[in-house]
Amino acid sequence: MSRIAYVNGQYVPHSEAAVHVEDRGYQFADGVYEVIAISRGALIDEEGHMIRLERSLDELRIARPMGRPALAHIMREVVRRNRVVDGLIYIQMTRGVAPRDHAFPANAQTAVVMTAKRTRPASPALMRDGAKVITIPDIRWERCDIKTVSLLPNCLGKQQAREAGALEAWQVDARDGMVTEGTSTNAWIVTKEGEVVTRKADNAILNGITRIAVLQIIAQQQGLKFVERPFTVEEAKNASEAFLTSTTAFVTPIVRIDDATVGDGKPGPVAKGLREAYLVHMAEQGEAA
Amino acid sequence: MSRIAYVNGQYVPHSEAAVHVEDRGYQFADGVYEVIAISRGALIDEEGHMIRLERSLDELRIARPMGRPALAHIMREVVRRNRVVDGLIYIQMTRGVAPRDHAFPANAQTAVVMTAKRTRPASPALMRDGAKVITIPDIRWERCDIKTVSLLPNCLGKQQAREAGALEAWQVDARDGMVTEGTSTNAWIVTKEGEVVTRKADNAILNGITRIAVLQIIAQQQGLKFVERPFTVEEAKNASEAFLTSTTAFVTPIVRIDDATVGDGKPGPVAKGLREAYLVHMAEQGEAA
Repeated sequence: MSRIAYVNGQYVPHSEAAVHVEDRGYQFADGVYEVIAISRGALIDEEGHMIRLERSLDELRIARPMGRPALAHIMREVVRRNRVVDGLIYIQMTRGVAPRDHAFPANAQTAVVMTAKRTRPASPALMRDGAKVITIPDIRWERCDIKTVSLLPNCLGKQQAREAGALEAWQVDARDGMVTEGTSTNAWIVTKEGEVVTRKADNAILNGITRIAVLQIIAQQQGLKFVERPFTVEEAKNASEAFLTSTTAFVTPIVRIDDATVGDGKPGPVAKGLREAYLVHMAEQGEAA
Repeated sequence: MSRIAYVNGQYVPHSEAAVHVEDRGYQFADGVYEVIAISRGALIDEEGHMIRLERSLDELRIARPMGRPALAHIMREVVRRNRVVDGLIYIQMTRGVAPRDHAFPANAQTAVVMTAKRTRPASPALMRDGAKVITIPDIRWERCDIKTVSLLPNCLGKQQAREAGALEAWQVDARDGMVTEGTSTNAWIVTKEGEVVTRKADNAILNGITRIAVLQIIAQQQGLKFVERPFTVEEAKNASEAFLTSTTAFVTPIVRIDDATVGDGKPGPVAKGLREAYLVHMAEQGEAA
């Protein structure tokens, strides 16, 4: 079965899914995106993703191309046509096609692209053994709270991680030495005092939908103490646990940061517990769908 | 006559010039570009643009898609097919098409897109009366020395300028209060002491090819004293002249910065002289072609 993409009103074979070279997404990174996990056919945390997508568009003053019901319909159609049960859907919206000029075009129409694909479950070894992250300077712009396609520094950081044999790179603000976030994931630690710590959703990080879901899980669980504040690399290396969250990684335990072993070098109980709870959170949505 | 674009080995009608939605330029801003002025059919400062393009590719570890002679041939073919005598050529190269993943793909081929268009001479009124710029915080990433398509903050800044009735926005580093550059132009002042001042080409600015050409003109002219250093907004407002340079704006005098009048509010002799000399520099290349 061949994959199908949605491109500006049409369902086309994935191999033919194309945009004009003067689409402002291509020439200016003038666009936003979302990645939504699909579990048992359900779009996980759809409303959260839609709220964030609308916020991203509004922050950049890109016109919303359609209402939520129309978007919901197309997303389901893309999922259906690609027969995705477990996987993800990728949505990109840009300011549209216009003769190249930095300022906003007068009459461009917001461009909409969607693709979907099946994904495999996370590697059991990764969950059993935990992941490694490296730390790198955060060289990104000052509006990382907007989910734009201006992802070049994230790509460079992720590549650096891969070459170091790591899953992810945690970016560090050179001004204050605090970890901001991973290149496509949010960063968390559990202190020796048992506090679960992650950075407040300021302009330096993207407010992950999985981050929000995990915060809600923590709020509902007894015995977990949560503190929203930034932390240093040193603090993370000395933490009892570390983990990352994202739409595609869910909750993934971290056991090494640069050359330091975190805790006893094995995935910790808090990360494992939150991962289990998050999988339940996903499964509930799958059953409800 | 319909416009022709070059897209990955083919000459196609401009309206059909398209790239795949998984081109990394579209999804990650993982690409670089150049804009070269064409004057009397000649590609102005071609070698400087080629050197910078290769540097941009190398900094991002994007494979060079072809050698300079092949690229020179295609550029001339695009100019010829579009019958451009005075105008510009736009060249974009990205890391190519690959399934979406932040890290570099193993087997992608560098994508190459070129378009050309005719442009009109600068408005005589603008040259007679001078331009206005506003100042805004520089919120960009820390590698502005690479000419990437990660231009979203530049677009936001240029739009802000337009809405303020200005030609350009000068970006200011919040850490030290120094002007970095415009959103698509380099920034210059002439002090009351007659020194021509522009920022050193560090990581915070793009080393403009027109900037380099103007530096060479200054070096050749007697009586002009040049100092390469950053300057504050306050210093610029109190300067005797200000101007900007770029491939498409050449040398354009500035007479207002925010609400301050620069000098006597008219284009000054240094800016006008450098513009004239730059036009000669272009004309000489046109005659040589």
